[in-house]
Amino acid sequence: MHEELLALLKKTYDVSFKDIDLLAQAFTHSSYVNEHRHLELTDNERLEFLGDAVLELIVSDYLYKHFTDLPEGKLTKLRATIVKEDSLAQFAKDCGFDKYVRLGKGEENSRGRERSSLLCDLFESFLGALYLDQGMTKARAFIYQVVIPKIESGAFSHEMDHKTVLQEVLQKNGDILIEYCLVNEEGPAHNRIFYVEVSADKKVLGTGFGKSKKTAEQKAAEVALAALAEKTDK
Amino acid sequence: MHEELLALLKKTYDVSFKDIDLLAQAFTHSSYVNEHRHLELTDNERLEFLGDAVLELIVSDYLYKHFTDLPEGKLTKLRATIVKEDSLAQFAKDCGFDKYVRLGKGEENSRGRERSSLLCDLFESFLGALYLDQGMTKARAFIYQVVIPKIESGAFSHEMDHKTVLQEVLQKNGDILIEYCLVNEEGPAHNRIFYVEVSADKKVLGTGFGKSKKTAEQKAAEVALAALAEKTDK
Repeated sequence: MHEELLALLKKTYDVSFKDIDLLAQAFTHSSYVNEHRHLELTDNERLEFLGDAVLELIVSDYLYKHFTDLPEGKLTKLRATIVKEDSLAQFAKDCGFDKYVRLGKGEENSRGRERSSLLCDLFESFLGALYLDQGMTKARAFIYQVVIPKIESGAFSHEMDHKTVLQEVLQKNGDILIEYCLVNEEGPAHNRIFYVEVSADKKVLGTGFGKSKKTAEQKAAEVALAALAEKTDK
Repeated sequence: MHEELLALLKKTYDVSFKDIDLLAQAFTHSSYVNEHRHLELTDNERLEFLGDAVLELIVSDYLYKHFTDLPEGKLTKLRATIVKEDSLAQFAKDCGFDKYVRLGKGEENSRGRERSSLLCDLFESFLGALYLDQGMTKARAFIYQVVIPKIESGAFSHEMDHKTVLQEVLQKNGDILIEYCLVNEEGPAHNRIFYVEVSADKKVLGTGFGKSKKTAEQKAAEVALAALAEKTDK
């Protein structure tokens, strides 16, 4: 196993695997196994099956408890966005895991190391290995360090009701007064445009407009979330 | 909350809810909420979202650890069969939950109490409530009492490789010698039929036939599993 990866896991996530072979398996793509048959390795596909379910439960538990006003349909949609291929591939990259996955030559030459599906599987198989080796509590802690902050910063908010997300984002550190204020309207009655400003504790966060007050409020919340996400990224 | 249900849960599953309202919510269909708006009830849909993920992880964990020879694709297929609507509706009925779900009149009159999708949601929402109220260990114990024995008896084996399932079923209580023996073949070379007998510790469990030895073995295992499942049901 790559010493650098062990050090990275220890330093960044306070994770020390007991079973190093299991960790190695999580980082072994089937193309590598196929090209090294004499080593009798196992690829990471079964771990991926398990890791998928681990992530799903921890994310569901978080969403259920934090978005208490969201109905089931929206929770399901939000969860699907968080655990979809592109999102998980990005988490794998955020963790620097792409550097350590063992690939066959063909896969490497066809840029498999950058491929979304491969990185998504890698992230899931790592979670499967982490859950088996360290238990649910450690798996949860890892996901709370890597995945949950992105949800909290509103990174997946494009998939849902922006007003609800903004409320969750702003109120995660305690109560805060969120107000939507109609600041302007223009145009004839049949084609009226509404302008709404959203503020938190009297500080304006964004403005939106639309053909109804409701649309304008949603737009304002979306603008506010984008501004907050940009601030968090810096 | 229905006293009978509380007694049933205590007696059969050793489960005593701390938060009775949460249990009541799990047994409340949206049609009941809509017809009793003055009671300000909450339906079971959000709990269903959570319970789905709880079941998925516990079943995945079990399958991963018990079907160690199954590749990811087959594990996924098997899991899908276990957690599909019809299966979960049957589990709800096995537990006697259908009797206690609160429905609106329209839903009741259109026989909603027997409908697969409604019972499936009920089973998942109960699991969600159980997980929230009693934690993962109790949720696991319940699933190991209700769901896992069905897997072990081969109830879902039609979806997979019968030889693998038979091996898992027979060896769950320790090593046992499983043999497939070609007992007969007949017909001309281009249309040969093979007969295979499967035995466990020299006791014949079933016979199968087919156009190849492999097919005949699978058939024999399928017959053996059906016979074992019948025995378990009695």
